[in-house]
Amino acid sequence: ARLHRIAVIAGDGIGKEVVPEGLRVLEAVSQRFGCRFAFDHFDFASCDYYLAHGQMMPDNWKALIGGHDAIFFGAVGWPDSVPDHVSLWGSLIQFRREFDQYVNLRPVKLMPGVPSPLAGRRPGDIDFYVVRENTEGEYSSIGGRIFPGTEREVVMQETVMTRVGVDRILRYAFDLAARREKKHLTSATKSNGISITMPYWDERVEAMASAYPAVRWDKYHIDILTAHFVQHPDWFDVVVASNLFGDILSDLGPACTGTIGIAPAGNINPERRFPSLFEPVHGSAPDIAGQGVANPVGQIWSAALMLDHLGEHAAAAAVVEAIETVLAQPHLRTRDLGGPLGTEACGRAIAEAV
Amino acid sequence: ARLHRIAVIAGDGIGKEVVPEGLRVLEAVSQRFGCRFAFDHFDFASCDYYLAHGQMMPDNWKALIGGHDAIFFGAVGWPDSVPDHVSLWGSLIQFRREFDQYVNLRPVKLMPGVPSPLAGRRPGDIDFYVVRENTEGEYSSIGGRIFPGTEREVVMQETVMTRVGVDRILRYAFDLAARREKKHLTSATKSNGISITMPYWDERVEAMASAYPAVRWDKYHIDILTAHFVQHPDWFDVVVASNLFGDILSDLGPACTGTIGIAPAGNINPERRFPSLFEPVHGSAPDIAGQGVANPVGQIWSAALMLDHLGEHAAAAAVVEAIETVLAQPHLRTRDLGGPLGTEACGRAIAEAV
Ligand SMILES: CC(C)[C@H](C(=O)O)[C@@H](O)C(=O)O
Ligand SMILES: CC(C)[C@H](C(=O)O)[C@@H](O)C(=O)O
Repeated sequence: ARLHRIAVIAGDGIGKEVVPEGLRVLEAVSQRFGCRFAFDHFDFASCDYYLAHGQMMPDNWKALIGGHDAIFFGAVGWPDSVPDHVSLWGSLIQFRREFDQYVNLRPVKLMPGVPSPLAGRRPGDIDFYVVRENTEGEYSSIGGRIFPGTEREVVMQETVMTRVGVDRILRYAFDLAARREKKHLTSATKSNGISITMPYWDERVEAMASAYPAVRWDKYHIDILTAHFVQHPDWFDVVVASNLFGDILSDLGPACTGTIGIAPAGNINPERRFPSLFEPVHGSAPDIAGQGVANPVGQIWSAALMLDHLGEHAAAAAVVEAIETVLAQPHLRTRDLGGPLGTEACGRAIAEAV
Repeated sequence: ARLHRIAVIAGDGIGKEVVPEGLRVLEAVSQRFGCRFAFDHFDFASCDYYLAHGQMMPDNWKALIGGHDAIFFGAVGWPDSVPDHVSLWGSLIQFRREFDQYVNLRPVKLMPGVPSPLAGRRPGDIDFYVVRENTEGEYSSIGGRIFPGTEREVVMQETVMTRVGVDRILRYAFDLAARREKKHLTSATKSNGISITMPYWDERVEAMASAYPAVRWDKYHIDILTAHFVQHPDWFDVVVASNLFGDILSDLGPACTGTIGIAPAGNINPERRFPSLFEPVHGSAPDIAGQGVANPVGQIWSAALMLDHLGEHAAAAAVVEAIETVLAQPHLRTRDLGGPLGTEACGRAIAEAV
């Protein structure tokens, strides 16, 4: 049977509660679909690790997990003990950059049983992907401060876009659009205001589009695009965006479908030179951590994205179906969705549905 | 009687149709409230002007309008003939920067008769301000391109925050929050990802907050903040944000209240060293321009913001009331809101209500 070696990193807060449910579902998958998983658990990339070692990860972290087929990740961050920019830049953002996970893929889908804050939308109405550039752009570490502590203080940070970086994310997004039924790509820009990097982004989109005559494409400035997400979420199929714009759109999209607590993300190196990382969109949620009430669906849906990446397409589809089956039944939902179940019981229900 | 000297710039597209309705309402205000207006009309800051003169504005534009008490502005941009970054950076963004209009003030309010895309929200539920920094931050003109046209191509653009620039917008926002009933300020940040400028923004917010003990404040990363705008718009009172984040939030907010076509903006120099500029949030709308169907409410609501800035508070309140009265009556609405009226008839109705 096909063996997949998975590095498991639960991280902080509810990450430690939802990851085991993801593993439970993967074990069910293994029984039904005949693939095998070897899970190696790691305790770094967590604030507990930081408090014990003064850094988020051991120096040899790349050697420890760089040979795995994928990383199954919970959540990182515990702002009461470690500032977010320290914990995130010392772990998640390192993984994305050092393992060249240049695609951040986030489905936005209206699911049964999940109330949407938008009026009159039904499951099936909203079903698109946000494809986010995940390594460069606005998330650069270039910049600094001059005249600190004085009235003349100035702080600068550089946005950096490279031809290689922009073209490869656009190619991934156009490829995805070309495989889908609607074949429609939307580019997020702000070339009327961010007058140097964003006109360049537009230029590359136009160049790339000429290689995909079957894909219909358009672009919107990010300000009005956020408005369209709320007013016309049915317009979208594949939305491609820079690192920051993709970050915003991939929270806003799930908010519009009511699924922010259950949405998944794939941080993908499509060439498989490095392991890709799969995680729920939600964070470590200190406010509910340790109570066994967190919704495990985001973590389990992330497992489905991981299965797809590993070539286990039938298993991936079965997991998404199992999620939909469970969400459609009020007595199988967790409390955030008005149901009676805790984290573990919900995970068991989905594993059984698989 | 108090005389206000107003520079009127209609600009492009539907700007030319809605500005006259704004002036009509201001004339009604003048009759009822006894203030007087001197309107000087200018044809620059439009793409027509660009096509005739090769630049968006005459060299002496500052001398022409710098002495006025305010600028009443329609909309600029006609992308079929002039690229947006040329038309906008050559006009609106010049005004904001050269006239030091460092506050962009945008009310977000659920109005009667305007359908919100959010389920179950009623007029009164949503009523807050976005206070956007309007001169620096992500909208800098520093940056460039190296190795153009090659695989090594790199494009960079600097975000620039100054102590002076950050502190003055925060002071304006805290002052506004302190005057309001809820006394609640929310700061938009992204210090977990944009790791140099945004932690600085947070630092200054914290420092400023200590001078306003009566104001309750919190902060959210921009990604989850856009989600909260959709899911909990009733949480907000005054939201302060950098140039780019404010741009996004002030389109998203009105989208959530269904008012994106009617929302106003003030580009304000609070010290009145330079004229402030008042404009609708909507653009020149090439798709409906020239048909007499544009909704003039955004322009008229901008007139109300201008009246407030000019110290005509009773008149400002009367204009907002007149707008609400008219919007509450289905037969007085424009077509975008399901009513029968064109631009001019709607303008007349509001002028009469004043
Ligand atoms: C047209 C554009 C440059 C402008 C901006 O981004 O500031 C607009 O979106 C606005 O909000 O006034
Ligand atoms: C935690 C933060 C640094 C991160 C990001 O901005 O990329 C998160 O919001 C995400 O979307 O994965």
